[in-house]
Amino acid sequence: MGNFTVEPVKFQEGRLIILDQTRLPSEEVYEELQTKEAVWDAIYKLKVRGAPAIGVAAAYGLCVAVRGCGEDDLTGFSQCLREAAAYLASARPTAVNLSWALTRMIACFDRMQPRSVQQARRILLEEADRIREEDEAACLAMGENGLSLLEPGMGILTHCNAGALATSRYGTCLAPIYLGQERGYGFHVFADETRPLLQGVRLTAWELQRSGVDVTLICDNMAAAVMAKGWIDAVVVGCDRMAANGDGANKIGTYGVAVLAKEHNIPFYMYVPTSTIDLAAASGSDIRIEERSGEEIRRLWYEKPMAPEGVKTFNPAFDVTPARYITAVITEKGIVRPPYGENLQKLFRK
Amino acid sequence: MGNFTVEPVKFQEGRLIILDQTRLPSEEVYEELQTKEAVWDAIYKLKVRGAPAIGVAAAYGLCVAVRGCGEDDLTGFSQCLREAAAYLASARPTAVNLSWALTRMIACFDRMQPRSVQQARRILLEEADRIREEDEAACLAMGENGLSLLEPGMGILTHCNAGALATSRYGTCLAPIYLGQERGYGFHVFADETRPLLQGVRLTAWELQRSGVDVTLICDNMAAAVMAKGWIDAVVVGCDRMAANGDGANKIGTYGVAVLAKEHNIPFYMYVPTSTIDLAAASGSDIRIEERSGEEIRRLWYEKPMAPEGVKTFNPAFDVTPARYITAVITEKGIVRPPYGENLQKLFRK
Repeated sequence: MGNFTVEPVKFQEGRLIILDQTRLPSEEVYEELQTKEAVWDAIYKLKVRGAPAIGVAAAYGLCVAVRGCGEDDLTGFSQCLREAAAYLASARPTAVNLSWALTRMIACFDRMQPRSVQQARRILLEEADRIREEDEAACLAMGENGLSLLEPGMGILTHCNAGALATSRYGTCLAPIYLGQERGYGFHVFADETRPLLQGVRLTAWELQRSGVDVTLICDNMAAAVMAKGWIDAVVVGCDRMAANGDGANKIGTYGVAVLAKEHNIPFYMYVPTSTIDLAAASGSDIRIEERSGEEIRRLWYEKPMAPEGVKTFNPAFDVTPARYITAVITEKGIVRPPYGENLQKLFRK
Repeated sequence: MGNFTVEPVKFQEGRLIILDQTRLPSEEVYEELQTKEAVWDAIYKLKVRGAPAIGVAAAYGLCVAVRGCGEDDLTGFSQCLREAAAYLASARPTAVNLSWALTRMIACFDRMQPRSVQQARRILLEEADRIREEDEAACLAMGENGLSLLEPGMGILTHCNAGALATSRYGTCLAPIYLGQERGYGFHVFADETRPLLQGVRLTAWELQRSGVDVTLICDNMAAAVMAKGWIDAVVVGCDRMAANGDGANKIGTYGVAVLAKEHNIPFYMYVPTSTIDLAAASGSDIRIEERSGEEIRRLWYEKPMAPEGVKTFNPAFDVTPARYITAVITEKGIVRPPYGENLQKLFRK
């Protein structure tokens, strides 16, 4: 990533600090989360967002949350831990990394059988550190795997932000772009602005520009025109939850981009760390899609109301891209091709 | 249209008055255009917009513009008229109605051979009135033709605004919705917000809501998800210029919607008054696509800058939907089906 590093979630000297992404790109403000309510709120309001970063924030957030649990009684601590995890898990329903990280933290606590609350806290913190380190390693591996599918000079379209700001480092689908940048690939990246919350404008364009990557910002509805011009050789997107059959939920608009890519014979690559694969969901119809306030559409970025008062809206935060539109799934363990039902299973047996 | 009428362009007692659509829906402000510069500016800035309304505004705008031409010399007046028309035609390149209306005004002047400047002015004003009246009649006819393809209770998706605000009355693609509303069809309309200038939010949602039509606002990138839910039975859109082979230029994003409609087996109807058909353009590649300032993307509605400073953009105002994606072309003279090359020609021979 050259001289550019960004840490959306960091845990330093016992303090959980996040970069408030709702204030980018105009302000780079870091905020300490000191209570479980503050962690919940930061996830709910998308101050920290992106499936992997949500997982990391939740893991450290749980360490913060259990500070409110008693010191002496391990049974009481265990109960308090579980309640805190359930509370944090309720912040957003779609990204599986949230519940995945929290479940993993509790499983670690149960497995390690700590003898004291103090030891329990240390065990939890070490597990959170591991989740963060594994995420960073997974991003790097996805970057290498993904880069093997790209050629220098390619035009690449991305939707939303699955970059450094969404992970512990590099990003998922932007990882190959950063690696390519370090190696002189000269990619031309097109970033969808990603309404209603403008992650493409505020986050993807910001982090790519900072890293010196050639990036062009377009409105979501311009992707088809850009593809028709022949400017796009590959589409790369992240994923918030992938079902066992390869259906992938990601930021609203991803499905439309996948349909357009298919129509223009452009490969569509979904970047999915194994922590984002939910084998308990048989297909996309088992994935709960978060619906958010219509004010996100009616107002521009929480500010000026642009719509006539009281107009109805439909505001799903995600959509599901059926497996048949996905050319390949890029994971940290390798590239998975169809049939996904079979090949995703194999991945977990590795 | 029930109790709701809106006149985006009116000519009353010698005054050309437009509804400033950039200030909708929060303010309903009418502005008199007193000079050719004011007319040019109103078209360029989209205070008046929509291919048919641009044609009407240009015709009346030419009547206003020639007030600056001398009174005595018919040859000088003729020259001044042509210069004013060329100037107005330069405001926006894509909608053919602009040059169509201006060319028609000059052809009328030439054909009628006025004996005095005073008579010339009267002739021009009468022609502008005819353009306006014909547009209103064409919209009503398109409404009836289009309604024959729809069933009560249908879900209908539209992009941008080809409604009452874009024409002299009823709209083109919204005309069947208004007629259906009067007849109790109970349509469920989904309006794409239409970035970057938000015509769907500000204009379509506004005029449909005022007319009591059930309308739901979505971001452009949600159209695919709404289609996947089975909520859309037909897509209706306007057109800014249709080539002889049936390729149709319309607001940016239309092409993407057409691809999505095809993928979901949803009929895609383009509403095209014959004044919008440009037989001089053989195909879509002959249509010049206006590119506008990147600030429209980088800022939200001219106000808050959301993008990192200096980020590159690509901001085409229109795209071309190839004829093969268009289920039927609805004109005031009837419904045209493929092959368009042949059947559009037939229309002009009627």
